[in-house]
Amino acid sequence: MIADLRLPAALTAGTQDLLLRRATPDDLTAILVLLSDDPVSAARGDRADGADVTAYARALRDVVEDPGNDLLVAVDAAGDVVGTFQLTRIPGMARRGSTRLLVEAVRVRSTSRSAGIGSALMRWVTDVAAPAVGASLVQLTSDEARVEAHRFYERLGFVGSHRGFKRAVQPES
Amino acid sequence: MIADLRLPAALTAGTQDLLLRRATPDDLTAILVLLSDDPVSAARGDRADGADVTAYARALRDVVEDPGNDLLVAVDAAGDVVGTFQLTRIPGMARRGSTRLLVEAVRVRSTSRSAGIGSALMRWVTDVAAPAVGASLVQLTSDEARVEAHRFYERLGFVGSHRGFKRAVQPES
Repeated sequence: MIADLRLPAALTAGTQDLLLRRATPDDLTAILVLLSDDPVSAARGDRADGADVTAYARALRDVVEDPGNDLLVAVDAAGDVVGTFQLTRIPGMARRGSTRLLVEAVRVRSTSRSAGIGSALMRWVTDVAAPAVGASLVQLTSDEARVEAHRFYERLGFVGSHRGFKRAVQPES
Repeated sequence: MIADLRLPAALTAGTQDLLLRRATPDDLTAILVLLSDDPVSAARGDRADGADVTAYARALRDVVEDPGNDLLVAVDAAGDVVGTFQLTRIPGMARRGSTRLLVEAVRVRSTSRSAGIGSALMRWVTDVAAPAVGASLVQLTSDEARVEAHRFYERLGFVGSHRGFKRAVQPES
């Protein structure tokens, strides 16, 4: 939990009112559905599989308990989770000692897309969350396969100036 | 400081022995020289300018005091800082609740390049640091202009599967 974030927050997406709040263990199933409701994530193994629920529950607790991380959910008027994303605050030396805010795992429910929810969430990140945590840069990576997502981020003022590299490693068991 | 990292660590780069250790305030000038000894960083404003020393000193303290971040320096036999990088441990939901290790601001002294120092540092990150913090994925972004760096990361087994987006924001003063 990043203590500087003032949550919950009321957001408007198009004509729809949303509540943005911290995820709780009760949101686990809804978040898993969002993570698996996406072909790129599903190909990586995020399949809302019952066998993985313990690992996901521990991960949710780890994120929310970490003072540099937060896991958020956007809830519609019916109480349904329609979006989620993670924030990481990163102090740093580069760019004259700038703090950055990293956004990971942005997902909007597939039946709720094109309703302005993603834009409302990202505007809250850049306009409210980043200044609140003292960040002068918001950054994220997006799979090269997500061409529509790249256009979406560019419309919001993000510049795709970097290449994102990843390497799997074997954690100690 | 990421407590799970066992430091200092002895590394070998080619025929050269290096000591990898946490940065201290005494390393500030050496780190600033490395950050400014790079045309891409210098263009962003990292110019080892005396006027920014206070901001950099505060940033160094913020990174080292953060339980999810660490700032490392590699020192040669003469006691000179020849490399630096930052690590951020990021717990997360995606990829079945994987913890990631983010690498930022990797710099090797320009007069010490092509000596295997960068490879030795990155191998320590993937083979020692990532397992020690329970990470199953190491990730980084590199400016699209750094074509040689991209080949370097690919030789070390990294896959440039993502686009890295950044957006400057105005922090609260």
